[in-house]
Amino acid sequence: MEVTLYPNERIDDLMRNDLKIIQNPERFCFGMDAVLLSGFASVREGEQALDLGCGNGIIPILLSAKTQGKHYTGLEIQEENAEMAGRSVRLNNLQDKVEIVTGDICDASIRFGASSFDVITTNPPYMIGNHGLPNKNDAKLIARHEVLCTLEDVIRESAKLLRPGGRFYMVHRPFRLVDIFALMREYRIEPKRMRMVYPFADKEPNMVLIEGARGGKPRLTVEKPLIIYQSPGVYTDEIYEVYGY
Amino acid sequence: MEVTLYPNERIDDLMRNDLKIIQNPERFCFGMDAVLLSGFASVREGEQALDLGCGNGIIPILLSAKTQGKHYTGLEIQEENAEMAGRSVRLNNLQDKVEIVTGDICDASIRFGASSFDVITTNPPYMIGNHGLPNKNDAKLIARHEVLCTLEDVIRESAKLLRPGGRFYMVHRPFRLVDIFALMREYRIEPKRMRMVYPFADKEPNMVLIEGARGGKPRLTVEKPLIIYQSPGVYTDEIYEVYGY
Repeated sequence: MEVTLYPNERIDDLMRNDLKIIQNPERFCFGMDAVLLSGFASVREGEQALDLGCGNGIIPILLSAKTQGKHYTGLEIQEENAEMAGRSVRLNNLQDKVEIVTGDICDASIRFGASSFDVITTNPPYMIGNHGLPNKNDAKLIARHEVLCTLEDVIRESAKLLRPGGRFYMVHRPFRLVDIFALMREYRIEPKRMRMVYPFADKEPNMVLIEGARGGKPRLTVEKPLIIYQSPGVYTDEIYEVYGY
Repeated sequence: MEVTLYPNERIDDLMRNDLKIIQNPERFCFGMDAVLLSGFASVREGEQALDLGCGNGIIPILLSAKTQGKHYTGLEIQEENAEMAGRSVRLNNLQDKVEIVTGDICDASIRFGASSFDVITTNPPYMIGNHGLPNKNDAKLIARHEVLCTLEDVIRESAKLLRPGGRFYMVHRPFRLVDIFALMREYRIEPKRMRMVYPFADKEPNMVLIEGARGGKPRLTVEKPLIIYQSPGVYTDEIYEVYGY
């Protein structure tokens, strides 16, 4: 399907199932974090998945190709991002499997109803608060800082939106790990699986992938390290093979 | 100094400052976890350190050589282990710097008094509970399972024993990480630093090193991975260099 492109937008090839995505460097381009989350999350046959804060739709679009779910919803508060994501869905003829909804994470459980999803994915704003930030309406700032929603909003709404036993997948920064675990346990999404992402084998991790289960029993499995580069500019075999780069 | 050796005991060389330690394979031999913790912990000039559950005294003895502290205390509930640890202290002529005390972690803050240490180290029993265990008096079982003290006992007493701002260092198993963070935050020892220990670069971690600060502000630094073996039987350079093997 042909779709309109606006100024500053470009179409990138996702190198998987001929998928393409519209990006706008002024507003939102997906990062390695979204790609890693789409490889870490599982959506099983017949399941319904929701991505909280979907940006340009990268996660629902990738998951629709990588997993066996029945349907994928992306929720995005910024109207222009949601509209751009909707065009990428049409560009890939995914309208039957992927829906983009414009709306706020903070009241997502009212919009969609309690226990309405089997899986939630989220790549939320990483940075705490909005103190001293120059322009709180800036599109990239809203995607990166907790201006419009906090980590607690994301976890609280996810706990309501998931069916009992439903799975929660998040990518975040390691420096928030204690907050993440504390909030997940408070809202009864027990952390069950974690993988640290190290840019190089001898560097501090810059991302962490976490799976939780609504109402799950305590016991965390920490997986082998995920290392991105074997040398500067050269991905490790796992990134090439598993993540399709 | 010459010391007595009992049946099944042997003297091992710690390959550092000519230190030696008495071990008994029937009761207690130190492991890599204690060695890694002694490399992860810092005790600064003039500080007083306490090791909770010191076994044969490996951590206080190593720390007395590796760090600049004023004094090191080891608390051990099993009388025979504490006695063996005391002989190792005398064997190394460390009586001025290291004291071994026989006693229970569960009431350690009453024994030593509140806010009485700058640093606490601990390599506590890893396994949960004591259900179905054959012999609850077995020396090795007490060292490995939460028979006589739980993770909560260790963290609660540490919070009382540390001065405000004092540092807590623990080695534990990754599967308990959520419990560890939850209890540390509950008792106001904020996790500040963490390092995952992977036996091989492509395997799940089998240990985690954690530093907390009593009353610290939330923000966790996750360090680069600590990898033990570069190939089967061959330690990585870091293990050889930093840990003196």
